[in-house]
Amino acid sequence: MRTQVAIIGAGPAGLLLSHLLAQGGVSSVVIETRSEEYVAARIRAGILEHSSVELLESAGLGARLRAEGDQHRGIYLQWPGERHHLDFVDLTGRSVWVYGQTEVQKDLVVARKADDQEIHYQVSDVALHSLEDRPYVTFTDESGHARRLDADFVAGCDGSFGPSRAAVPAAQTYEKVYPYSWFGILADVAPSTDELIYAWHPDGFALHSMRSATVSRLYLQVPNGTDPQSWSDDRIWEELSTRLGHGQNGWKLTPGPITDKSVLPMRSHVRTPMRHGNLFLAGDAAHIVPPTGAKGLNLAIADVALLSKALVASIADRNDTLADRYSDDAQRRVWRCTHFSWWMTTMLHTSGDPFDAQLQLSQLRWVAGSRAGATGLAENYAGLPIGY
Amino acid sequence: MRTQVAIIGAGPAGLLLSHLLAQGGVSSVVIETRSEEYVAARIRAGILEHSSVELLESAGLGARLRAEGDQHRGIYLQWPGERHHLDFVDLTGRSVWVYGQTEVQKDLVVARKADDQEIHYQVSDVALHSLEDRPYVTFTDESGHARRLDADFVAGCDGSFGPSRAAVPAAQTYEKVYPYSWFGILADVAPSTDELIYAWHPDGFALHSMRSATVSRLYLQVPNGTDPQSWSDDRIWEELSTRLGHGQNGWKLTPGPITDKSVLPMRSHVRTPMRHGNLFLAGDAAHIVPPTGAKGLNLAIADVALLSKALVASIADRNDTLADRYSDDAQRRVWRCTHFSWWMTTMLHTSGDPFDAQLQLSQLRWVAGSRAGATGLAENYAGLPIGY
Repeated sequence: MRTQVAIIGAGPAGLLLSHLLAQGGVSSVVIETRSEEYVAARIRAGILEHSSVELLESAGLGARLRAEGDQHRGIYLQWPGERHHLDFVDLTGRSVWVYGQTEVQKDLVVARKADDQEIHYQVSDVALHSLEDRPYVTFTDESGHARRLDADFVAGCDGSFGPSRAAVPAAQTYEKVYPYSWFGILADVAPSTDELIYAWHPDGFALHSMRSATVSRLYLQVPNGTDPQSWSDDRIWEELSTRLGHGQNGWKLTPGPITDKSVLPMRSHVRTPMRHGNLFLAGDAAHIVPPTGAKGLNLAIADVALLSKALVASIADRNDTLADRYSDDAQRRVWRCTHFSWWMTTMLHTSGDPFDAQLQLSQLRWVAGSRAGATGLAENYAGLPIGY
Repeated sequence: MRTQVAIIGAGPAGLLLSHLLAQGGVSSVVIETRSEEYVAARIRAGILEHSSVELLESAGLGARLRAEGDQHRGIYLQWPGERHHLDFVDLTGRSVWVYGQTEVQKDLVVARKADDQEIHYQVSDVALHSLEDRPYVTFTDESGHARRLDADFVAGCDGSFGPSRAAVPAAQTYEKVYPYSWFGILADVAPSTDELIYAWHPDGFALHSMRSATVSRLYLQVPNGTDPQSWSDDRIWEELSTRLGHGQNGWKLTPGPITDKSVLPMRSHVRTPMRHGNLFLAGDAAHIVPPTGAKGLNLAIADVALLSKALVASIADRNDTLADRYSDDAQRRVWRCTHFSWWMTTMLHTSGDPFDAQLQLSQLRWVAGSRAGATGLAENYAGLPIGY
């Protein structure tokens, strides 16, 4: 097989890249080790920042998002006894949307099918070859046949466990592992809040998020290594009630049937450069952020926005300027989001050190009480323009 | 002896308190273990924030400050290859003044002498008694006589090594020790910059400050335990040149005769409450900040501004409301400044961790490039209003 861009990974980064490339007249083939159903069902991020929504809309992927997504003006920031609303629209003119990664994925699958995108699911033995010259990718397809895919460029959109990241040699890696995890639940109950609540509490951080008008998503800071099955539903709701302030100022947390429990470890990971020869990395293949601040999916979308332009310019216009700058250009935003995610994480998660706790509370008061402080959070959370 | 307020410590906090109390019609006696000359010559902070200048002026202490001090619109923030000016006046309408603690001290000594303030220098054996009832302070005076000073209230303005802090029992203490120190020099040379330069550098932080048109004050981040005498003058200037970017974009650092070398360890320390019975703590007796961001003296002035009002209200108006709120009111600003000093410190000092270094650079770029980011730094650096 031959195509212009071989895309490894059919998650949102890979499918969005194939979509944007097609709009730029560039052909691609996508390969994915998982099944279509598995990828579609993966529960991941749920918040789209302003720039991500703009990009999806401009790519013709915004119709269901506008109809079914839920636009939020901001977030609540709280600590015991106080809850403050940060209105991003007032502060920065930008908003965020609650629209799950599963929904983005569905829209992309529909759009790529309508466009006859070639996607090979359930492949195995993926290997990248000759990346500095005429690259090709070998794999075993769903039927067990060995295949070879030749391409002008390879895009590694295969996450932190895929083969692409390992194919960038001598990359510098930066990493921080956090001493806590998120215990996440999905519950079949209407959210007890109209917008997300980020709660600092001496017992640990809690977050009230949501997926829809009938599905709530909630998180608790827990020690690393926590077994989600070791917590009863009652204990989870009790802990959420305490940390989120059930009963304070008349606010109530309504519990409901828990349909999913999982524990997410938290780390920051950046590798650089995001390019090796004709291989380009995008999304989780190049960087991981902790979930606080909801940057992971948005950063992948921003990478792909830059990368699609760069590849279209290289292939259609024979102009390599953007491709040559891709890694540096993408890294600026990667580090902005890595810093912001680290900042939100370390401001909100308790470490057990009383000095840290007082610093966090003073910072939270300042962020909620100072227009500059609130705007700083808002412009990072709602997202800097693509190309920042 | 009997007075209304016994003030322990004749540094800027103690003398300013005696000055503000006198203006409120309240009498005080100040005792100090050091000599007048020693206190006057101590080299300490050099930057007054907007609110401190306003307070000194409103207390009639602003004439020489206005005439001889140097108003700065902001600071420079730099990292290799880039220097950015943050204009606090544009960002917040507030400025800072370069006017050394030694100068503030001189002005206070002159004012207190003009007012016949009773000050006992070179006292020893200071002890605080009966703080929850009718307090008194015992000490041995300069001539070797045992003295007893009875008062309505005692103000502990005697720094982190004085007896006052130890007299507040069961205080909660919060502490952080930083893994680096500041190597500070005074040099008889005109500053090579019009406003302070805060420089991030892979070899460590450097700061170009100044005391006057002919005296420069410069600092280098060094490992804890560094012996200032182990560094030659040449080595100091070479390291300063490298970190401050001598030769970059035509900027030059002019060296000169070094008249003082010292190494300052860096820590954050807060104790609470700042009151025990009729004893009130102010300034370094209650909190220590690292020097980054120049908050130490300003925080002492802000404490004293609150405390003088509280004591005047208690004594002259027999209204204890402000005295009862003093510790809580002061702590809000204490933690704001403790957080800001920690933030400036950890943003600018290298830890040796490459992930930290990239976070710092991304944060510096954001602070310098975003109006919200720059305003956040500016409003904290130029100082929140007294009573924040």
